[in-house]
Amino acid sequence: MTVNVFGGGTWGIAFSNYLTSINIKVDLYCRSLDTIKQIQINKTYPKFSNFKAPDEINFINSINDMNLDHLNILAVPTKSIPSIMKQIHRKDSRYLILSKGFHPKLKLLSYEIINQKFNIDMKNIAVLSGPNHAEEVVNLKPTAAVVTSTDLSLSEKIQKYLSSVNFRIYLSDDLVGVQVLSSVKNIIAIASGICEGLDLGDNAQAALITRGLNEMKELKSVYDFKLSTLYGMAGLGDLLCTCYSNFSRNKNIGLALAQNKSLDEACKNIDMVAEGVHSSKVVYDIINEFNLEMPICREVYNIIYLNASPELSIKKLMNRELKKEQ
Amino acid sequence: MTVNVFGGGTWGIAFSNYLTSINIKVDLYCRSLDTIKQIQINKTYPKFSNFKAPDEINFINSINDMNLDHLNILAVPTKSIPSIMKQIHRKDSRYLILSKGFHPKLKLLSYEIINQKFNIDMKNIAVLSGPNHAEEVVNLKPTAAVVTSTDLSLSEKIQKYLSSVNFRIYLSDDLVGVQVLSSVKNIIAIASGICEGLDLGDNAQAALITRGLNEMKELKSVYDFKLSTLYGMAGLGDLLCTCYSNFSRNKNIGLALAQNKSLDEACKNIDMVAEGVHSSKVVYDIINEFNLEMPICREVYNIIYLNASPELSIKKLMNRELKKEQ
Repeated sequence: MTVNVFGGGTWGIAFSNYLTSINIKVDLYCRSLDTIKQIQINKTYPKFSNFKAPDEINFINSINDMNLDHLNILAVPTKSIPSIMKQIHRKDSRYLILSKGFHPKLKLLSYEIINQKFNIDMKNIAVLSGPNHAEEVVNLKPTAAVVTSTDLSLSEKIQKYLSSVNFRIYLSDDLVGVQVLSSVKNIIAIASGICEGLDLGDNAQAALITRGLNEMKELKSVYDFKLSTLYGMAGLGDLLCTCYSNFSRNKNIGLALAQNKSLDEACKNIDMVAEGVHSSKVVYDIINEFNLEMPICREVYNIIYLNASPELSIKKLMNRELKKEQ
Repeated sequence: MTVNVFGGGTWGIAFSNYLTSINIKVDLYCRSLDTIKQIQINKTYPKFSNFKAPDEINFINSINDMNLDHLNILAVPTKSIPSIMKQIHRKDSRYLILSKGFHPKLKLLSYEIINQKFNIDMKNIAVLSGPNHAEEVVNLKPTAAVVTSTDLSLSEKIQKYLSSVNFRIYLSDDLVGVQVLSSVKNIIAIASGICEGLDLGDNAQAALITRGLNEMKELKSVYDFKLSTLYGMAGLGDLLCTCYSNFSRNKNIGLALAQNKSLDEACKNIDMVAEGVHSSKVVYDIINEFNLEMPICREVYNIIYLNASPELSIKKLMNRELKKEQ
């Protein structure tokens, strides 16, 4: 079996490495010739320590050399989905989305872009998500994820062929929920990083993340998702991993913001795309349009885009009126 | 205003210290004269670094010197509730429970002991719970909690007088839920510590805790609690703090068990009561009696009481059959 992976970032490389470990052949499209050369010659990848690139990954630099009949796995940042889809959209090809976030300009999730802008039938789209930091998947640490599609036979096939003892894939029938929640959780993770950066303590961080999960539920009035998704691997599971793990780019953005670094400096620090920064803007518009009660996401927007003080914003959140829980 | 606090452990001292910071007078009953002397003479408490005991805490070594008309705050381990209640039960006194756990022999929660064994009317019982590590509360770090009673006027009074900007108390109307969930979460925290001790990674830990929360929901068929409690401060909030914080005794028990230390050694290591060890036994009986699907709690019991290998138990949990979420 051969699959195509698009994207030579950490998740693309880590997932490809995992797939080769279960004897799936991978054609990996990577835009950067430098990255390809470095991996092929040195067998290393600077963002992974102790990583030895397997020979089984077939690095490809030209889309024309990819066979689009294979399952096409999209591991690029959400903002790059349109440019890659422009080159690979084909009516009957199947697409598995690994990206988590809103497109900053189109204000759409990846599956919406693929379906609405490139007319790919929903039955040919699947999404994989969960608490899946690339830095651990590349080392084959035990990981759980969900796969979802409106076409059960597609998600079942992906589960059957891509799941293993080290990477357990569960089925979900809530594609919308998986995509929305995996995007919004990045915003809460930025807040979690700010909380940690301000040294507010484990009590405050746990309270913030708990409020964050309940806040994510607010989006149910806009995106009709299932509560079992919110409380499952693609909701809570992913939220926890992103809010607590030191591998989390979004948490690290928050840590830098808490040290009064500018957004540019914070992003430079992590040297990767933190989807939460883009998603924050889109979700802020949704909050206003639908008049949602999402104070944490609102404050993260204020900090990132309106230069609000992280300290004052978090204090504002902590000091909200006493009331009955939910 | 004066309150009584019973228990000279970390939570009793930290909560008393907090109360004096908001100008509440505290009569603190402490069984150990040595502890009292040390705090009164040295103004320190060995388990808190950088702690200066305030003069406003009135340490008392004899129950007879306590005025039981005050609110009686119980900060002793659950297994000590009967012996302390034997000395202080009085028909019209009011009791605020801080203890989290099942009594190992009576197999009861604290409120059940106070109500059933000492005939205290439920309207005179309140419970305070949440993500509240003593080590942070003692330093007045921002913390959130819930208070609950079957008598709303009691919980409202506690909220009004004991809440502050550093320790936000929310109202809950689900006393049973708050007590059950705060006890069961300690078992999941032991599993979280084992996961961390085995170095399984952040992905696996997030997956385990997510499964843990869903597993706690199983107890709804035995204790009729609200889902808003499960997903609120006293459920998820407390779970997160206990599963992730380095202050968590229960997580630290798990860390020691993962290093193949015996239960005795593990408990000696933390030199405090880890409620999860007792609760594990009681919950195990409940699981069997009501035929509940709680694999994590089952494996923690197997590890603690049947010498199962932590590594094999966790592997067993990870390798459960692929199925639809929920």
